[in-house]
Amino acid sequence: MSCLVVGSIGLDNIDTPLKSYKMIVGGSATFFSNAAHHFAPIKVVGVVGDDFTEEHMSSFESENIDTSDIAKCQGRTFHWHGKYNEDLSEATTLDTVLGVFETFQPKISDSSGVENLFLANIDPDLQFNVLNEVKVPGVVALDTMNLWIDIKLDSLKKVMSKVDILFINEGEAIQLSKETNILKMAEVLQKLGPSTVIVKRGAHGVFMLKDSDIFVLPAFPKCHPLDTTGAGDSFAGGFMGYITQQKTYDFNSYKKALAYGTMTASYAIESFSVESLRNLSLEKINERYHDFIKMVQL
Amino acid sequence: MSCLVVGSIGLDNIDTPLKSYKMIVGGSATFFSNAAHHFAPIKVVGVVGDDFTEEHMSSFESENIDTSDIAKCQGRTFHWHGKYNEDLSEATTLDTVLGVFETFQPKISDSSGVENLFLANIDPDLQFNVLNEVKVPGVVALDTMNLWIDIKLDSLKKVMSKVDILFINEGEAIQLSKETNILKMAEVLQKLGPSTVIVKRGAHGVFMLKDSDIFVLPAFPKCHPLDTTGAGDSFAGGFMGYITQQKTYDFNSYKKALAYGTMTASYAIESFSVESLRNLSLEKINERYHDFIKMVQL
Repeated sequence: MSCLVVGSIGLDNIDTPLKSYKMIVGGSATFFSNAAHHFAPIKVVGVVGDDFTEEHMSSFESENIDTSDIAKCQGRTFHWHGKYNEDLSEATTLDTVLGVFETFQPKISDSSGVENLFLANIDPDLQFNVLNEVKVPGVVALDTMNLWIDIKLDSLKKVMSKVDILFINEGEAIQLSKETNILKMAEVLQKLGPSTVIVKRGAHGVFMLKDSDIFVLPAFPKCHPLDTTGAGDSFAGGFMGYITQQKTYDFNSYKKALAYGTMTASYAIESFSVESLRNLSLEKINERYHDFIKMVQL
Repeated sequence: MSCLVVGSIGLDNIDTPLKSYKMIVGGSATFFSNAAHHFAPIKVVGVVGDDFTEEHMSSFESENIDTSDIAKCQGRTFHWHGKYNEDLSEATTLDTVLGVFETFQPKISDSSGVENLFLANIDPDLQFNVLNEVKVPGVVALDTMNLWIDIKLDSLKKVMSKVDILFINEGEAIQLSKETNILKMAEVLQKLGPSTVIVKRGAHGVFMLKDSDIFVLPAFPKCHPLDTTGAGDSFAGGFMGYITQQKTYDFNSYKKALAYGTMTASYAIESFSVESLRNLSLEKINERYHDFIKMVQL
C-alpha cells in the first residue's frame, strides 16, 4: 500500500547566509516523497517543464517512488527564489515563476493500492479535485500556506472540511484561527474539519491535537541546518510514510509518526535540495530517532 | 535542608491586554520562593521599603518560607511597570524605580542548613558577594538579564565562572553567546563556567545542556496565561525546589526538575502576582505533572 502526494516540483534559487544555489530541485512533492519513501511506496502527482532534465529527474530515483504521474509539459518548471535570514527561520520570496504549474491539472492514472493521500500546499481548488477523484481507505492530509488563506479562504475551508489531518505552520495557524494560544488555535482549526491538527513550529518543534488528545514534541536539537527549504514537507513525508507503513491511525501511532517526521525534517535541512534525504536510510533515521528519544523522554 | 534565594522583591504595575494591576507584589525572589516552597524550605534574602505593608508580606506566609533575612529599609520598595503585548510573550518596561534596592547589600544571618543557592537576576557584583559568603554542599544556580550583559559583562562572566547552573532566556542566551543554534548557544555559555545551561524559551519550553547530555521539554500547552511576569523565576523555583527536596544532582533528577519547573511556571502565569502559586499544593502540581507526561512521552 502506498501514499499518494500531489504537490509542486520546482527548480529553485536559494540564498542562505552561508551559500547560494541556482536552479536546484525543490517543491513540496519533491521533499515529501524523498522523506516518505524510506518508510513506504510513494506515488507522486505533479508537473515539470521541458527544462527539467534527466539529471533533475534522478532526484526521484527510488524503487519506492512512482513517478509515472509526473507530467512533462512545454514551458518552464515552477521556480521559486528565496532568501533566508541569519538563523534560517524565515525566507523572503524574491521571485516566483509559475510556469507549467499555472495550468496544472493533476491527473491520476491509477489510484489502486493507494492507502493515504497527502495534498501538499497547492491551490485548494486543485486539492479539492484530487480529493474527489481519489478515495482512500486510510487518511487524507492537507498542507496550506498564507497565500491561500489570503486569496482563496472559501475554497480552503471547503477542502479542509473533507480532510482528516491538517499540517500547518504556526504563523499560518495564527492567521487562520485568529488565536495565539497553541491549544485554542488547534481547537479552532479542528472545528473547520480535520480531526487531527498538526502545528509546525520550526526550530521549536511540533504540536498535535488529535480528537481531544494533545501531543507536543521539540525539534531535534543536534542538527546542523544549512537550508530549511522543504522542512515542513519533509516532516509531513516522514509522518505520512510512517503511518502508511504501519497502517494504524491511533494516537500512539501518530505520536511515533511525529517523531519520525521530526527526524526526516532534521536530515532534510542539513543539505541544499534533497541531497541529505537521498543519502538517507531507515537505519540512519532510526539511529537519530533513538538518540532523540533520550533527549525528550523523562 | 533548604534553598537560599537572593533576589528582588517589588511592587509592580502590570498592564496586559485583558487587565491592569497597580502595586502588586512581584520580584524574582517572590516568584521563586512561592514556587519552590511547595517542594522544600526556602530562605529569602532581599529588601523592601517602608511602603511594603503587612498585607504585602503575607505573600511570603508559609512554614516553608523563612523571611528573616528580608531587610526593611526606609524608602520605596523596588517598582517595575511593564506592559505586555497581545500574546503575553514580551513586555515593554514603562518605568523602573530602584528605591531601597539601589543600596541593597544582601546580608545572610545564618546559612546553616542551606543545601542550594539561587542567585536571581540582580547585579552580578552582588551575586558574586553572596556566592563568596555562602558555601553550599549542593549547587549554585544563577539567572541574569540583558541589562547586565550590556553594562556589566565582565562582572557577569566572573560570577558565571563560579556557578553550577545557568538559567537564561533564549533571547539573552543569543545575545551573550552570539549563536542562534540552541545547542551551539548552550555550548558557548557552558564554556563560561556553568556545567549546566538551561535556556528558557517561553511558550516553546526549555532546553538543557548538562555536561554533554541534552534534554528538551515543551511548555505545558493546556495553560491559560493571564500575566507572564515571573514565569522564569517560578520555573527556576520549581526546578531548584525539586532538586533541594531530592538532594540528587544527576541528569535524571534534573530532567524531572525541568518538568516540575514547567508545572510551577504554568500555574504562575495563570494569575497576576503570586496568587495562583499561593493557592497551589504539591498534589495539584503532581496532577498537572501526570497530565503533562502523557502529552510529551512517546
